[in-house]
Amino acid sequence: MTAAVLCTGTELTRGELFNSNATYLAEALTALGFEVGALDAVDDDDQRIVRALERLGKEHDVLVCTGGLGPTTDDLTSECVARVLGVPLERDETSLEAIRRRVERVGRTLTASNAKQANFPRGASILPNPNGTAPGFSVKLGRAAAFFLPGVPLEMKAMFAASVVPAIQPLVADRSHQTLLRTFGLPESEVNDRLAGLDTAHDVTIGYRARLPEIEVKLLARAPTADAARARAAAAAAEVRARLGLDVVYGEGDTSLPEVVCRLLEAQSLTLALAESCTGGMVAELVTNVPGASRSFLGGVVAYSNAAKTELLGVDPTLIERHGAVSAEVARALAEGARRRFGSDLALAVTGIAGPDGGTPEKPVGLVHWAAASDAGIEAKHAVFSGNREQVRRRSAYAALALLRRVVLRSSVQP
Amino acid sequence: MTAAVLCTGTELTRGELFNSNATYLAEALTALGFEVGALDAVDDDDQRIVRALERLGKEHDVLVCTGGLGPTTDDLTSECVARVLGVPLERDETSLEAIRRRVERVGRTLTASNAKQANFPRGASILPNPNGTAPGFSVKLGRAAAFFLPGVPLEMKAMFAASVVPAIQPLVADRSHQTLLRTFGLPESEVNDRLAGLDTAHDVTIGYRARLPEIEVKLLARAPTADAARARAAAAAAEVRARLGLDVVYGEGDTSLPEVVCRLLEAQSLTLALAESCTGGMVAELVTNVPGASRSFLGGVVAYSNAAKTELLGVDPTLIERHGAVSAEVARALAEGARRRFGSDLALAVTGIAGPDGGTPEKPVGLVHWAAASDAGIEAKHAVFSGNREQVRRRSAYAALALLRRVVLRSSVQP
Repeated sequence: MTAAVLCTGTELTRGELFNSNATYLAEALTALGFEVGALDAVDDDDQRIVRALERLGKEHDVLVCTGGLGPTTDDLTSECVARVLGVPLERDETSLEAIRRRVERVGRTLTASNAKQANFPRGASILPNPNGTAPGFSVKLGRAAAFFLPGVPLEMKAMFAASVVPAIQPLVADRSHQTLLRTFGLPESEVNDRLAGLDTAHDVTIGYRARLPEIEVKLLARAPTADAARARAAAAAAEVRARLGLDVVYGEGDTSLPEVVCRLLEAQSLTLALAESCTGGMVAELVTNVPGASRSFLGGVVAYSNAAKTELLGVDPTLIERHGAVSAEVARALAEGARRRFGSDLALAVTGIAGPDGGTPEKPVGLVHWAAASDAGIEAKHAVFSGNREQVRRRSAYAALALLRRVVLRSSVQP
Repeated sequence: MTAAVLCTGTELTRGELFNSNATYLAEALTALGFEVGALDAVDDDDQRIVRALERLGKEHDVLVCTGGLGPTTDDLTSECVARVLGVPLERDETSLEAIRRRVERVGRTLTASNAKQANFPRGASILPNPNGTAPGFSVKLGRAAAFFLPGVPLEMKAMFAASVVPAIQPLVADRSHQTLLRTFGLPESEVNDRLAGLDTAHDVTIGYRARLPEIEVKLLARAPTADAARARAAAAAAEVRARLGLDVVYGEGDTSLPEVVCRLLEAQSLTLALAESCTGGMVAELVTNVPGASRSFLGGVVAYSNAAKTELLGVDPTLIERHGAVSAEVARALAEGARRRFGSDLALAVTGIAGPDGGTPEKPVGLVHWAAASDAGIEAKHAVFSGNREQVRRRSAYAALALLRRVVLRSSVQP
């Protein structure tokens, strides 16, 4: 079973917008078990749209199209589909009423442009759009079951899940289940090596996605029943955890490392403070991006200048003189200082050289020290991270959060 | 003159990777003056690649392809192009030598897979790749001048600029020049309204791109000479600045708002400190992401808890009791406290309710107060921002930086 995606819009072909819809649909169709053969985008040109529809409808079993359902003259999808099918456009009164209600709810009156959104090729099945004015529709187009959705990602995704998935899932004989494991701390090549042979052993497909500084491992299992597919993915996931270790595989699905850390802190009623130098607030930003972070996170100091390190966090100036601001000693003192200053259970500190300037032969760009302070004492680590300033900072922030996770997990298993 | 982009790779059609190459090439080809009619991606399937090449070569004047030039069996581009042209593959000895040198420089020896990268369709012109092993090539494919580049963005972009642009620029009669203006503070619809008619008045094309929380305005001018195109774009840019105001149009090209602020501070030898509540370190993160930020930025406090606000920044607890932590009074006190604590020339403070919880009828989610303290006193502003937690935080951080920019600009024009 092959599938294709067609996205229309001159804003795409002019490069004004990233085509995130295409990637989303490609991933979702792959996870359902389709072989996605084409991800095409064309501008708002009726002839090019018509030709693309004819071609993709002939070559694929499923076709998902986005865009061109809006109220303006640029929105040509319904008209082009009608032309390919050789049928007229017909008004759907139920859709028109829904559009009218939606428009009037925000205090406007229905215009001819709005009304145009209720016109569909004769014989089309209407797909409701709970989040916007433009309904979608589906038709048989050549060989393909074809679905037409709006280009607004929020609307498109909801309609894909509600209307398209139930219609196309029966087309693939096997049910599929995808498990996404999130890892941090190993390079992609090593993750790859350590998981060698796991795909054949568990009859799953393994996919990788590098989202700096993480490597996501996707396990896609297919089986005659949904339960069997789920069980197969779960068995493969258990082996991935065993092979990579729980320090590396920190979570599953959409849950980010900062979220995992916040949930752990909250579950144990622990409070956190931060002291950041080279990450410059990035760790705090990651933590506070988690809703409810305020239940555990007391605050942090971005101690960029040495004066800030000594005056706000009580780091002994002779320590900085003797070892330099980027050193294990200062990382420890920063963590200790933050813990004391905020009166928190735990504190995390990062100091390093993010570059592009400031490196020396002894302390190159990318050298970063980080430390976590708790009741059990202070644990410090360091590394020389590669990449540009932004990448060094991201790797540092994640490394610090990974250390914090380990410290909290360890404290929780103690008596 | 129409152009098309074809990207090959199963990692794209499976949705494992965002197709940033397509967007980059679409924007660059549009800026050169081409009408981009198709941005297609196909998986690593030789038949689908061949069909796409035949079709796009027939329909367009220029075709730029990326991917499939690597050493593995999945890399099929040269072979597919040779099949479409009906010519054999031939080894290019100069390319083979360059690949051998590159491979040996990193301590490996040339394999048959590497050597395959020196095979090109007979008659092709080789395009050197200074940043990687895989050279590109160009051929005439149907109607199109067709260019084949590697999929690695860094390599692709350098080769596009060095080899493709000089070859295709002569195809468009007019020279073009694009100016990108960066704006913050007005919604897209209002930017749009205020610039109504400017395109016809200056004979330019206006494009918008929303990059939350900014709106970028792209002015594309075409003229018989490069100088005339540049002059036309400059005249249009001057009118955009006049219509939107210099508070809104803060920069041009790649220069971000944090970068503009850092450059202003550095030029006037001013130092900065921060006090953040709802933005949780985001302002600090944005500022310290600018290389050289340490020359102006002393540090900041992420005062998430009320205790942190009073103890680290000296905010009077009765002020918080009386007005609440999210208030103009506390924003002012935070800015003043940060300025005093760090001994900086300027300080910026943000306090607000980012959501999703914590709102009340009087103080809804999205309410944010921010303040800038300087020698000239304290200036405070507030707004109710829309969007989710992440969006409220981003809008708040940018609003605070925009206020800081105005305060610095104002101080610099004073005697």
